[in-house]
Amino acid sequence: MKHLLVIGIGAGNPDYVTVQAIEAMNRADVFFVMDKGVAKEKLIALRKHIVERFVTDRDYRIVQATSPERRRDESDADYRTAVDELNRDKQQIYERLISDELQDGEVGAFLVWGDPSLYDSTIRILDAIRAQGNHTFAFDVIPGISSVQALAARHRIPLNRIGKSIEITNARGIADGFPAGVDTVVVMLDAKHTYKRLAHEALEIFWGAYVGTPDEILISGPLRDVMDEIERVRDEARRTHGWIMDTYLLRRRDTE
Amino acid sequence: MKHLLVIGIGAGNPDYVTVQAIEAMNRADVFFVMDKGVAKEKLIALRKHIVERFVTDRDYRIVQATSPERRRDESDADYRTAVDELNRDKQQIYERLISDELQDGEVGAFLVWGDPSLYDSTIRILDAIRAQGNHTFAFDVIPGISSVQALAARHRIPLNRIGKSIEITNARGIADGFPAGVDTVVVMLDAKHTYKRLAHEALEIFWGAYVGTPDEILISGPLRDVMDEIERVRDEARRTHGWIMDTYLLRRRDTE
Repeated sequence: MKHLLVIGIGAGNPDYVTVQAIEAMNRADVFFVMDKGVAKEKLIALRKHIVERFVTDRDYRIVQATSPERRRDESDADYRTAVDELNRDKQQIYERLISDELQDGEVGAFLVWGDPSLYDSTIRILDAIRAQGNHTFAFDVIPGISSVQALAARHRIPLNRIGKSIEITNARGIADGFPAGVDTVVVMLDAKHTYKRLAHEALEIFWGAYVGTPDEILISGPLRDVMDEIERVRDEARRTHGWIMDTYLLRRRDTE
Repeated sequence: MKHLLVIGIGAGNPDYVTVQAIEAMNRADVFFVMDKGVAKEKLIALRKHIVERFVTDRDYRIVQATSPERRRDESDADYRTAVDELNRDKQQIYERLISDELQDGEVGAFLVWGDPSLYDSTIRILDAIRAQGNHTFAFDVIPGISSVQALAARHRIPLNRIGKSIEITNARGIADGFPAGVDTVVVMLDAKHTYKRLAHEALEIFWGAYVGTPDEILISGPLRDVMDEIERVRDEARRTHGWIMDTYLLRRRDTE
């Protein structure tokens, strides 16, 4: 039997790693390290740094693979098709890794940025492989600090209003307006300044880029007052670093 | 200047503690330990256990205080009033702790179950005290693994469907039906089996109690098929332990 560990290593700050994640890393024979895009080398180096820092109890192998990238399209239908294609490609890579790079009785680990349960495909892909029945393995999931929590902690704000709900979504979730029934929305994966579409609503924004790292930038205030600053700072940071990872929280100002 | 740390210690499993939380605990001169209700002694003992296990670098004091409890009412207006009263009472206790139990130049720490940004009042109370202006202090927030993440990890499921939104709410958030615009809802703080009201909808439930602890119970399946089992198991566990801490995720079955 092969065993896989899907380990959340937190978003940004290597100190977000949990004791459970450290113990899990120290059970791994193989680390599968995958990334994509312009930040690829940097993100792979960061993962290796985490492994070197925390794995003290045993020898291990690192197997590097290139993660396929999603076609970028506009419409919802195309988005879904592109994600499906991407996951099929990823699944083939994962199948090869599990079949060729991991022996029976060994433990393989995927290190996931943030939390494996939030906007990450690893669990879904492992489920799909198991459902097909060609590969037999067990797997466990180790939670990690998500970028949502890092954002709230660094701004020192609660995510929810008293007794109220929170919605976690992507840029598409606010493209048609602020969602009904909640007064706080956290937006991940917005490459297009979608918050600007909500300028007519009475909202506060708490924005952060590279949160938890030495490059961290935090901006907050009434959306109308700070949105142009966020756009400018974000575009500039993206040019400077060659990549950006940012998240923001929007909150109605007319409640509480 | 006094310094306060609001440290998330994770939900349930002491191994959910992060490296950052351990470093923060090792900077504290005083730990403020507060709990309430029937599980009070157990939760205080668990916090002390975490401090003893992880604080190795320095001496510290532990100051114990009794947390006031919320009046339990039915209506939304009463709920809000009760929470406001509770937070006023808590604020007075926190003010006393900061003023009497912490010296200038010292670091005081509040250990929060789960993540301080999610359904916890510590940040809100510290903001209120600072806004009043009678006490001067700085504070930092250290994120922790929330019960939402622990639930998803232990069930080995993603929180979100591909490209879809998640709502995190309390029992009131689903009392009038499954929220619009999302296909996944995580419910915290439901003491009344509110999920049973949604039996007519095509939903899957992933339920967990004492998640991450040796007493953990996990049940999942189509809501209609397993809801009576969850009700029975929950009531029984609550009788056996004298208290219960549970969370669940509801997901539409007719999508994806």
